[in-house]
Amino acid sequence: MTVTSTTSLGRATHLSCRECGTTVELGPYYACLECFGPLEVAYDFGTVTRERIESGPRSIWRYRDLLPVPESVTEIPNTDPGFTPLVRADNLARELGLESLWIKNDAANPTHSFKDRVVAVALAAARELGFKVLACPSTGNLANAVAAAAARAGITSYVFIPSNLEQPKIVTSAVYGTTLVAVEGNYDDVNRLASELAGEHDDWAFVNVNVRPYYAEGSKTLGYETVEQLGWRLPRQVVIPVASGSQLTKVDKAFRELVQLGLVEGDAPAIFGAQATGCSPVATAFKEGHDVVRPVRPDTIAKSLAIGNPADGPYVLDVARRTGGAVEDVSDDEVVDGIRLLARTEGIFAETAGGVTVAVLAKLLREGKLDPDAETVIFNTGDGLKTLDAVSSVVGPAGTIAPTTEAFHSLVNGG
Amino acid sequence: MTVTSTTSLGRATHLSCRECGTTVELGPYYACLECFGPLEVAYDFGTVTRERIESGPRSIWRYRDLLPVPESVTEIPNTDPGFTPLVRADNLARELGLESLWIKNDAANPTHSFKDRVVAVALAAARELGFKVLACPSTGNLANAVAAAAARAGITSYVFIPSNLEQPKIVTSAVYGTTLVAVEGNYDDVNRLASELAGEHDDWAFVNVNVRPYYAEGSKTLGYETVEQLGWRLPRQVVIPVASGSQLTKVDKAFRELVQLGLVEGDAPAIFGAQATGCSPVATAFKEGHDVVRPVRPDTIAKSLAIGNPADGPYVLDVARRTGGAVEDVSDDEVVDGIRLLARTEGIFAETAGGVTVAVLAKLLREGKLDPDAETVIFNTGDGLKTLDAVSSVVGPAGTIAPTTEAFHSLVNGG
Repeated sequence: MTVTSTTSLGRATHLSCRECGTTVELGPYYACLECFGPLEVAYDFGTVTRERIESGPRSIWRYRDLLPVPESVTEIPNTDPGFTPLVRADNLARELGLESLWIKNDAANPTHSFKDRVVAVALAAARELGFKVLACPSTGNLANAVAAAAARAGITSYVFIPSNLEQPKIVTSAVYGTTLVAVEGNYDDVNRLASELAGEHDDWAFVNVNVRPYYAEGSKTLGYETVEQLGWRLPRQVVIPVASGSQLTKVDKAFRELVQLGLVEGDAPAIFGAQATGCSPVATAFKEGHDVVRPVRPDTIAKSLAIGNPADGPYVLDVARRTGGAVEDVSDDEVVDGIRLLARTEGIFAETAGGVTVAVLAKLLREGKLDPDAETVIFNTGDGLKTLDAVSSVVGPAGTIAPTTEAFHSLVNGG
Repeated sequence: MTVTSTTSLGRATHLSCRECGTTVELGPYYACLECFGPLEVAYDFGTVTRERIESGPRSIWRYRDLLPVPESVTEIPNTDPGFTPLVRADNLARELGLESLWIKNDAANPTHSFKDRVVAVALAAARELGFKVLACPSTGNLANAVAAAAARAGITSYVFIPSNLEQPKIVTSAVYGTTLVAVEGNYDDVNRLASELAGEHDDWAFVNVNVRPYYAEGSKTLGYETVEQLGWRLPRQVVIPVASGSQLTKVDKAFRELVQLGLVEGDAPAIFGAQATGCSPVATAFKEGHDVVRPVRPDTIAKSLAIGNPADGPYVLDVARRTGGAVEDVSDDEVVDGIRLLARTEGIFAETAGGVTVAVLAKLLREGKLDPDAETVIFNTGDGLKTLDAVSSVVGPAGTIAPTTEAFHSLVNGG
């Protein structure tokens, strides 16, 4: 595939290696040819104003000047995710002894997870780069997002899943008419096959493989939106779940870009990472003071965070240390408690990743690692409807009664 | 319970019987004391401008001047639903031979159905009327919405469900910490118990029973939003699912109010009702030219529409006939096809009610009852994640392969 001189990805100018700084032209590249480090999109932003952003659509495309997408991105069919609610969480704050808490609720996205953001950006960039097919290996949220976005864009998609995936997760991708391929093996096997197929098909965009530099930029919009929705104010503390770690590092990048562009004033927030103890390689490295992350074999109910060898783990450590944050982990029981606490106090039903984040918030407060008086934002990145099993054994009816008022009185009076 | 003179429900002035016109003060009343007809909220709107609406929040509360809620409604914790996307559906339009089609996608609401709208209005009115507890009988979406809204509002709630309800539907309400009461019997038994308990507890607001006049007004916001999101333009045709029929009649009311207030010009759209054949008493009455609706025993996969004796059925017939619309029904197989068609063409995964609506749209076009050249809006009122069973046996992987490129080639080449 040839990238032509007419390729236009907005104000993106080139790709740059995060390790050695080597630059390469915009194209279907994701690893540095010099050092094999990850490539990242670089820009010449010029002037970007609040007014221009605020006059844009109520979606991630209001930040199109800060993303590697064509200026005309809003005219092309896509899922148009983002601008999800930033919900004031006074009830939860009160229970935890926090002064000011907000929840950025990405369950409101089209397929109900933050993956709609990264896939939408990957799709927009991939079309401009000349790719003809959208694809991914996934076990859940990403598969839903790719299948839905490709359907709306009217392009062919392939989604690769482990063959032992639960039936509900199969249905929620297959319904969009994608070619769903069940692969014998675990997620690592699926991932390896995807990389091999990406090498064979130079017009296939595997969103999280060969167009990953563009895809990853989509997570910045979580940071942009948080600041704009606070009234162009930086929060003081943010708690973000860590799977590959990409989201956390991109949100940090978003805050710093907004400061550099003069769109907001103040110090970038302290950024805290949240993991489940059953897959906590980054939290372990943070606590032990290491710079490298030792891979683990995941064993947690928080499947959407279960990446044992997180690509951006070392960068997460950098961000947490630089900003005065931390990386913490919680047990699966605490995850379930976190889901229930958020639902009971704020009426928001989060998937397990959201439970991890709420539970880590509570733990950091107990440990005195978070300032209870500082404005805090936590991210809920997915929807409880997708991980019902996590709570199905611990919530249920108060009782079963005959259809009479007497039976009801007896139940509620403990009679 | 006494309604005091300080009760303030915005510009609502009284309740009025839809049958005999008898009026009654604003209060916890739902049936006319003269003729037992249903009461409806009446207003003195005064002047309402587009500018005032457009300067409001991105939720149903931007229309607070047109709802029976206090002026201060935005300051009180609630789920703040609404302003869901109006999605341009060019792919689906092309497949069906339609010129211009939009989907109002209420799966984007906080608990992913339109019930968040009516519950939010019921909650706001109930608090002002002095109720202390929120409650409902329900088999699904309504239960989720009540439990979530009560949690966020920090008030006690009771949700009554049939004891044989499927486990996922139990979890998605119980997680919010409501007192969930399983009742031996069918939905009619649950509903009767709720009415008895409403009579006993004069500070309990059963949203769809004793505060139903306020609750029902919430559906008007679907009509308001459609017009505003079209750029203050009335569509020419609208297809709306029919359960009790309340939503359809309220959307019609919304269009007429906007015209009367001078907020939009033109003729009110032709309104079409959509039912599943397995519970199609209104469609049957429409086709047979009857004014009364004969109750049926529901037997359809579209559970959220399965009301065999729809309270607003006769009013739906009036609206369809007055506006030049119709009421049509489709088989369960067509419902499944409708869900798949919408997902495949637009990347929107609807619950069974949405499948009914899409399938009825297609059938009305085939029958020549819809004008293919007229701008059309259809409502998706819920989320496919809540009714996975409807499609789980008909969608799935294209195949299962070994984790090799050879195995993949063999699969896609039919080898």
